[in-house]
Amino acid sequence: MSDITFSVTATAASPTRTDVQARNFSLVLDEPPSLGGTDSGPNPVEYELASLAGCLNVTGHVVAREMGISIESLTMTLSGALNPAKFMGQSDADRAGFKGITVEMKVSSSADEATLEKWRTTVESRCPVSDNLVNGTGVSIKVTT
Amino acid sequence: MSDITFSVTATAASPTRTDVQARNFSLVLDEPPSLGGTDSGPNPVEYELASLAGCLNVTGHVVAREMGISIESLTMTLSGALNPAKFMGQSDADRAGFKGITVEMKVSSSADEATLEKWRTTVESRCPVSDNLVNGTGVSIKVTT
Repeated sequence: MSDITFSVTATAASPTRTDVQARNFSLVLDEPPSLGGTDSGPNPVEYELASLAGCLNVTGHVVAREMGISIESLTMTLSGALNPAKFMGQSDADRAGFKGITVEMKVSSSADEATLEKWRTTVESRCPVSDNLVNGTGVSIKVTT
Repeated sequence: MSDITFSVTATAASPTRTDVQARNFSLVLDEPPSLGGTDSGPNPVEYELASLAGCLNVTGHVVAREMGISIESLTMTLSGALNPAKFMGQSDADRAGFKGITVEMKVSSSADEATLEKWRTTVESRCPVSDNLVNGTGVSIKVTT
């Protein structure tokens, strides 16, 4: 299969608000007032969790089809904790981002527990966003004026 | 500073569409028809790029304030390529996610080149989403029925 390239463009509408264009879709990211923003949309790390949720859904259904198991319903809660001190320039003691992400998946399926465990590990390894987070991904930033 | 916990909830509206709730905000993720979806929203890896864009904007302005430099405008293009073969279960030759992410930042600022280079490296290290991608982040998935 050939590589697929995905791209978005983004504009700083304010120091906290970012307007993103992904193909024909517009997204708004902001920070809540408690983090200095104007709360026009979810913040970047909430988008990070949303990205993982969407990827686990799609991958979950692809893998379930392959395994011949049904998923009647799927809901998830995703959480992560971070210390804002490094982001704010106050301390390097903790890393900047989430220290870890937990995902609780509630699945309605007739598959037994061992089958769902195999499903879970397969989904985790084949989900592109999970792979990018768990195994790390190079980010190359070029600045022009 | 204390840790801050961020959470979202998600529902599989279809095998490709995910409805996410982040506080009072609703987000829709889907896949384009070319990837088997109904194109109700950007796809998960486009959200991943959006998340990084938003984080670089916020962190960019925090660091600029500290350094005493102005940012009159900031636009970005973010891109990544991935091979869908692992996601589709066809091959493990390539990783599942983006092989790398490139960010082109166009900054309008009176700061000189050396100052902007220091700004860039500081932003990259202090942006939570960039940290999560570059340095890797544990994802713990628990399935309940």
